[in-house]
Amino acid sequence: MADKKFSQVYVENVLDPAYRNWKANFYAASLKVHKAHLCMLYETGIISKDKAKEIAGGIAYLEHEFSAPGHIPEGVEDLYFLFEKALGQQIGDENAAWLHTARSRNDMDTTIFRLVLREELAVLIERLQVFSKALLARCLQGENELTVLFTHGQPANPSTTAHYLSSFLMETIGDMKWIVQALADVNQSTMGACAITGSGFPVDRQYVSDLLGFENYIPNTYQAVSTSHWLVNAASTIRNLMIDIGRFAADLLHKASSEVGLYRFPDDLVQVSSIMPQKRNPVILEHIRIQAEMVAGACDAVAHSFLNVPYQDVNENADMIISKLIETIHESTSVIDLLQESVLKMKSDPARAREICRQFGVTTTELADSLVRIYGIGFRKAHHICAEYVASGYDIQTLRDSFFKETMQALDLSNSRIEEILDLGTFIQVRKTPGGPSHEGIKAVYARAEEMLGDMEKNIISVKSKWHRADDALEEAFKALIAG
Amino acid sequence: MADKKFSQVYVENVLDPAYRNWKANFYAASLKVHKAHLCMLYETGIISKDKAKEIAGGIAYLEHEFSAPGHIPEGVEDLYFLFEKALGQQIGDENAAWLHTARSRNDMDTTIFRLVLREELAVLIERLQVFSKALLARCLQGENELTVLFTHGQPANPSTTAHYLSSFLMETIGDMKWIVQALADVNQSTMGACAITGSGFPVDRQYVSDLLGFENYIPNTYQAVSTSHWLVNAASTIRNLMIDIGRFAADLLHKASSEVGLYRFPDDLVQVSSIMPQKRNPVILEHIRIQAEMVAGACDAVAHSFLNVPYQDVNENADMIISKLIETIHESTSVIDLLQESVLKMKSDPARAREICRQFGVTTTELADSLVRIYGIGFRKAHHICAEYVASGYDIQTLRDSFFKETMQALDLSNSRIEEILDLGTFIQVRKTPGGPSHEGIKAVYARAEEMLGDMEKNIISVKSKWHRADDALEEAFKALIAG
Amino acid sequence: MADKKFSQVYVENVLDPAYRNWKANFYAASLKVHKAHLCMLYETGIISKDKAKEIAGGIAYLEHEFSAPGHIPEGVEDLYFLFEKALGQQIGDENAAWLHTARSRNDMDTTIFRLVLREELAVLIERLQVFSKALLARCLQGENELTVLFTHGQPANPSTTAHYLSSFLMETIGDMKWIVQALADVNQSTMGACAITGSGFPVDRQYVSDLLGFENYIPNTYQAVSTSHWLVNAASTIRNLMIDIGRFAADLLHKASSEVGLYRFPDDLVQVSSIMPQKRNPVILEHIRIQAEMVAGACDAVAHSFLNVPYQDVNENADMIISKLIETIHESTSVIDLLQESVLKMKSDPARAREICRQFGVTTTELADSLVRIYGIGFRKAHHICAEYVASGYDIQTLRDSFFKETMQALDLSNSRIEEILDLGTFIQVRKTPGGPSHEGIKAVYARAEEMLGDMEKNIISVKSKWHRADDALEEAFKALIAG
Amino acid sequence: MADKKFSQVYVENVLDPAYRNWKANFYAASLKVHKAHLCMLYETGIISKDKAKEIAGGIAYLEHEFSAPGHIPEGVEDLYFLFEKALGQQIGDENAAWLHTARSRNDMDTTIFRLVLREELAVLIERLQVFSKALLARCLQGENELTVLFTHGQPANPSTTAHYLSSFLMETIGDMKWIVQALADVNQSTMGACAITGSGFPVDRQYVSDLLGFENYIPNTYQAVSTSHWLVNAASTIRNLMIDIGRFAADLLHKASSEVGLYRFPDDLVQVSSIMPQKRNPVILEHIRIQAEMVAGACDAVAHSFLNVPYQDVNENADMIISKLIETIHESTSVIDLLQESVLKMKSDPARAREICRQFGVTTTELADSLVRIYGIGFRKAHHICAEYVASGYDIQTLRDSFFKETMQALDLSNSRIEEILDLGTFIQVRKTPGGPSHEGIKAVYARAEEMLGDMEKNIISVKSKWHRADDALEEAFKALIAG
Repeated sequence: MADKKFSQVYVENVLDPAYRNWKANFYAASLKVHKAHLCMLYETGIISKDKAKEIAGGIAYLEHEFSAPGHIPEGVEDLYFLFEKALGQQIGDENAAWLHTARSRNDMDTTIFRLVLREELAVLIERLQVFSKALLARCLQGENELTVLFTHGQPANPSTTAHYLSSFLMETIGDMKWIVQALADVNQSTMGACAITGSGFPVDRQYVSDLLGFENYIPNTYQAVSTSHWLVNAASTIRNLMIDIGRFAADLLHKASSEVGLYRFPDDLVQVSSIMPQKRNPVILEHIRIQAEMVAGACDAVAHSFLNVPYQDVNENADMIISKLIETIHESTSVIDLLQESVLKMKSDPARAREICRQFGVTTTELADSLVRIYGIGFRKAHHICAEYVASGYDIQTLRDSFFKETMQALDLSNSRIEEILDLGTFIQVRKTPGGPSHEGIKAVYARAEEMLGDMEKNIISVKSKWHRADDALEEAFKALIAG
Repeated sequence: MADKKFSQVYVENVLDPAYRNWKANFYAASLKVHKAHLCMLYETGIISKDKAKEIAGGIAYLEHEFSAPGHIPEGVEDLYFLFEKALGQQIGDENAAWLHTARSRNDMDTTIFRLVLREELAVLIERLQVFSKALLARCLQGENELTVLFTHGQPANPSTTAHYLSSFLMETIGDMKWIVQALADVNQSTMGACAITGSGFPVDRQYVSDLLGFENYIPNTYQAVSTSHWLVNAASTIRNLMIDIGRFAADLLHKASSEVGLYRFPDDLVQVSSIMPQKRNPVILEHIRIQAEMVAGACDAVAHSFLNVPYQDVNENADMIISKLIETIHESTSVIDLLQESVLKMKSDPARAREICRQFGVTTTELADSLVRIYGIGFRKAHHICAEYVASGYDIQTLRDSFFKETMQALDLSNSRIEEILDLGTFIQVRKTPGGPSHEGIKAVYARAEEMLGDMEKNIISVKSKWHRADDALEEAFKALIAG
Repeated sequence: MADKKFSQVYVENVLDPAYRNWKANFYAASLKVHKAHLCMLYETGIISKDKAKEIAGGIAYLEHEFSAPGHIPEGVEDLYFLFEKALGQQIGDENAAWLHTARSRNDMDTTIFRLVLREELAVLIERLQVFSKALLARCLQGENELTVLFTHGQPANPSTTAHYLSSFLMETIGDMKWIVQALADVNQSTMGACAITGSGFPVDRQYVSDLLGFENYIPNTYQAVSTSHWLVNAASTIRNLMIDIGRFAADLLHKASSEVGLYRFPDDLVQVSSIMPQKRNPVILEHIRIQAEMVAGACDAVAHSFLNVPYQDVNENADMIISKLIETIHESTSVIDLLQESVLKMKSDPARAREICRQFGVTTTELADSLVRIYGIGFRKAHHICAEYVASGYDIQTLRDSFFKETMQALDLSNSRIEEILDLGTFIQVRKTPGGPSHEGIKAVYARAEEMLGDMEKNIISVKSKWHRADDALEEAFKALIAG
Repeated sequence: MADKKFSQVYVENVLDPAYRNWKANFYAASLKVHKAHLCMLYETGIISKDKAKEIAGGIAYLEHEFSAPGHIPEGVEDLYFLFEKALGQQIGDENAAWLHTARSRNDMDTTIFRLVLREELAVLIERLQVFSKALLARCLQGENELTVLFTHGQPANPSTTAHYLSSFLMETIGDMKWIVQALADVNQSTMGACAITGSGFPVDRQYVSDLLGFENYIPNTYQAVSTSHWLVNAASTIRNLMIDIGRFAADLLHKASSEVGLYRFPDDLVQVSSIMPQKRNPVILEHIRIQAEMVAGACDAVAHSFLNVPYQDVNENADMIISKLIETIHESTSVIDLLQESVLKMKSDPARAREICRQFGVTTTELADSLVRIYGIGFRKAHHICAEYVASGYDIQTLRDSFFKETMQALDLSNSRIEEILDLGTFIQVRKTPGGPSHEGIKAVYARAEEMLGDMEKNIISVKSKWHRADDALEEAFKALIAG
């Protein structure tokens, strides 16, 4: 293509930033696509062995010797054309041009972006696996750590650190399941779609897809280059993970606040006030919240950028928005790092848990349940008796009086038995409900967690091993071309 | 519970709207939950046979005879307490109270909401199946309808209506896949979680889950009542479907515009101007866009409502936001109705497709490809020759001269052969690439579409049949209780 | 216009809902526009006196006698055409048609929507004024109510209820300022723009604008019917008010939580648990948060609906989205009602404030400041001494030792003087900084609040009185036409 | 303060990024705040002349000699503490500490951020002024350039480039008005608020505000450090500008499309296809759309980050989110650069405008109007006659017949007179409506544009000159301290 001079404003605000982005982030993947496409052109007989050998030699040479300048050279539209030009200088323009047979930047670009994005998503999934295992280990360690759980901001039930954290663990695993599905949407080849209608050449889409390790190729050629699913779905799943993390950070902030004090953060995570000597701010939790908010917002920006954009191949599918999405993945990793640091380092304060339960009568539910079980009275009546007991400031005589008034029988439990019933330990121990805080109960959670984590681990290992095998197969096929 | 007087402002702006919403939308599901819970209380021996019989009788009576007043009665907090009160009047407060053993409004409410939401999502999925099949039928009918496809707003390649519509069909099917997964997140029981830590009573969570037809129950009891996944994930998938529909509407608006004119809408879908006699606005497409935008926005509102909300059982999980989500499903149905009407009624104009291709040299790509295939010249060179031909205003002599200059050989194709190469039919026919517009190519799309639709159909049939079988089992078990 | 049959799907999902919406909400305003336009046609000589009289008579008749059916009649596109038809039946089609000279539904519709929306915004502004005054009164009453203020979730400084609430008062007033500006964007006539380029008739745009009480008319006729400012700006300002309210609700939830306990809610605003006898949930605050979130989300939906929509007259400017916006205003009123109820009814607990300050050494800042003032030591050194005091568990001897070690002089303050310094009252009393919590300090806040509220009150009174005067002028002019 | 070791994860993901951000972007402003605060401490007698002189000397020394390391040193929390330490090394810790009397990082930080953000907003406003003037100049030049304007995607009326562009000019000016108001929210001092309740020292908040050139200071000290208005309002106004630009880009893409062809872009703004020789994509418009979408999304992220965040001083008000907001301003500038380049370089094609008008009967409205004016028939009847003319394919005999049938009189206009009436020039020329496309009409738009631009220019000049005068006054006061 003859060189042309682009508007300076356009170069500075569009072409050069895109060029630099490509150079930094997408060049390596573009070489893979060149190689896989070339192998296919040869295998299908679209180009001759000699031609293939010459082009392969040129690519191999450039792979080691070519270094794109820091900024886009004048008259060049993008890194792709610069590479084609360099290839032409190496093996002759005519030979070089054969490489672009039966393909277009449309299908190449989305394939390249998918190659990069799938790796990033895999890294995120693996990071979440590490986090999940750390969280699971922390749960196992916290099975006897008393804590208090809240509803609507008010203390509701005693429980354990294991019960609390394993709840968030299940949320994380649930989010991972969706991110794994988003990866499946990304992990599809678009090569062979060419501009939008495929080609008159007898391309082998499956072969290219396999050489690049994709799960499959997107059949409809127009969809292949026009769909936004691989971006919008990935963005949605990351946003939703961030919403969960933001909620969890908000809850931890409450539990770690001075007044609640159920968890304490070590000095190395706490900042001081420049003016208030008494302050110990666990601002790490605020920073988790903030970073999660910003990632969630950026993910929404990615999705919203497709609102009302014509269903065509558009530049919303190009490097700018993809790079924003990749940025959210990197920032997510920071969020997870901070969260893991917080969860592993925070210390529970069981004494404070007991205090809160005593002060706010948190175990009274269990007293009501016990009255039901022991005396066979209805739940609502038991609930009413206990409410009077609460209203009296936990006066045991009031409890006995109220019980008598409602049931016409004496409450023949000793004070110490009543105390025992109201104890946190009892409360937790009797809750053998699968998924509850007792040792028996929590097992159901671990079992589900391990099953889901195991399934996802197998899935991601299988996906990645397909990538690695494909890398080997591609290099082998490409070397065979060079050898001729 | 003793009656209490709530603030008038609170009643008008919170309690009464919620009460009316419950009465209209959630009451039927709440009866199911009462019955299933009662059956479980009996089966696990938590309550005696006699007690169970009495309560069952009360519920059965209320099911036919009780009608909640139009507005919330004074002193009542919600429909649940009103029902409990009515039950007490029927069978005695003490008996009635037994029903609430080992459960809480927390677990009941989310289970009830999930029962309702899963039905709504199933309706949406089934509506999308109907739409997909209609779209597929329209594709089959449009395999020979010539059209033009665009990239970046410019005419790019000729194609067929089948190729174009089947691309959007695949988008729809892709979105359905995610909605089906969202349904799986909804289709889980939370019963047995009670307030947040389960119960000291030996509840059988699996039995209740089965009686209600759920896929399983959420193990961690705290997660069960605190998670927002069932709402946020559903909202995300519907939003993303709407983004796709918005993009498609934007593209159809372009294709149906006066200047492009590739598709025409019949009079019964077209509005006129009150002042411009010549106007024929296919505003149905605008209305699809608008309704899709608003649904997408409402879905975002649902998801955003959880931003920074503490990870606890909160009222974001209560009737207001769930009802907004259900509203988006209803509005989605309107969007799909309008879209189906548009797609089925619009008529393609192949003559206009030919005209655009001629005017903008849209098939020149094929000429370049043919030069490559026939003369063995490189693609870039062929592309250059054709660009000169385009620049000349499609002057065949220029084409011949340019060819000679670049290749030093004569272009020995006749004018009519060149015309043939440039013909839309040829362009399409040679694109046998799997997923391309030719008859051979499009088959790959249909195959994938049918496979995915079939899988989802099986899935949804199996899910729904589980619901229906559970309904029967529940009624049977409940009647057995009444029989005593 | 000849009747035509529209697609049933289109009627059900677009035309009929729009028709019913118009009938319920925009019909009255449309009559005003008919009248004002008619007066102008007559005043400019575009139609004759007789014609004007006849049309005026017809409108006057229909105003009292015409009642649109509940659903859109077959063959009719919208309420406008139905009205024109009814007018034609009344005064003859030819006469009726003259009314539509030099106007279009494009300019009429936006003018009608603006007439309705401006009233709604005025109601919202007035509601906020009432709320602000109530809040101000509550502040005045709370000048001596001790409380504690937090930063980053930790207790930071003692203060007063007046100081705290007046901060939120200023936020509200700040938001109102923006809503008033949004109203100014709405309060502009678009009449005379006709379809988009005005008319060849000598219309008097100023006259119509004046008869409808608008501040002015939008000059560029294309902008008049294409702009989204009046919707997007209004939606943004309401969203931002909701964000503030959501933040305030989150803060109140914290202050009203069991563990913090600085504010208590009366029984008539508190809900109980169906299972936990001790629970007292001030869920009204959650409902404020939830309703605010949903309104904020709906406002975003309104704004986002214009993303990438061509800058033309589009149906995003039509009844559906405008009605969503109006709905957010109604819902905002509910949010403000609930908020006002909460703020006016909640009771502060100064004893708890003292307790928190003592427990967490919240007034230590003042001790550090006092050491600086009394002994002339640097602030950082004083801060350090006090930090050691805090670390010792508030042991006065440690304080004296540390002071000596750092300054080589004795801390010659008596224990009781130190106690006094650490007292909340002292802390507040000495903070005479303008805008601080002391009596002197808070005056600056009231002054600004009253000034801003006064300005806005004047503004809104002036705007509304212009509307009322215009209403009178319009009726007078219209009656003059009827009189002939 | 004694050094402490922070968690490595925390340092890497929070402290160090924040430190580097401060060093790059906020350090200069922090020096201003140090100086202004010091001047105030001296003027109010809080510190002695000697002390002030010593501290001033230290600051002056550091201003020239101190260079913060590239990464945060171990044990340091932030750049602020590092600076204080360096000052201590220079003039002794005791002296240095005096500088922090009666202030906190809370009030300092927000004041510093406001100093930086206000400059950025001013740059954006000035960039918009330049753009507006360029657009206005382009309008003046385009008063006779015929074009076609669309409604609902269909050609509606002929008009001029001036009319079209001046409409968007008014949108831009409208957006600027809001950004100017956002600047006013930013341009307020928070100094003197200290942590949140001000100080017991007799600080002079007005004096510091004046020395820093602020419009005023925020009275309520709690609001001063807790409000998000300065961020959320700025973010909203920038988002709304971007929505307008996105709409305009979408409309230009339509007008510049091959089929419409009303505007053409020069080669230096057009990209080619790597595979389709005929393609000429004005993708600059797509890039405007994409960049605008992403900026809009980032602005929403800023606003949404405050959703449900407690109304306290929180880190959402700290450097991370502020920097994201500043980034949106920089990116906005890129959007405006690209837009200006597009608008100034695109060429209208009046011949194509005529063609479209002829083909789609766009001027028929004028024919209907003329029939009304000439024959005194009603508008609806004239509209009907013209609709039949359109339906006939613009057959003049049909027009005459229809006219006769409807009016029982002959249409005695010559064919050439009818042609004249249907001419674009006539259509535009007769539209003398203020704000319409004729020379007379467009004047009203220019007048309003110039008035509004002039007002804003005066405003921004006055604001900036206050900043410059304050800079001088501050340097003078500070030098006087050094001189002693």
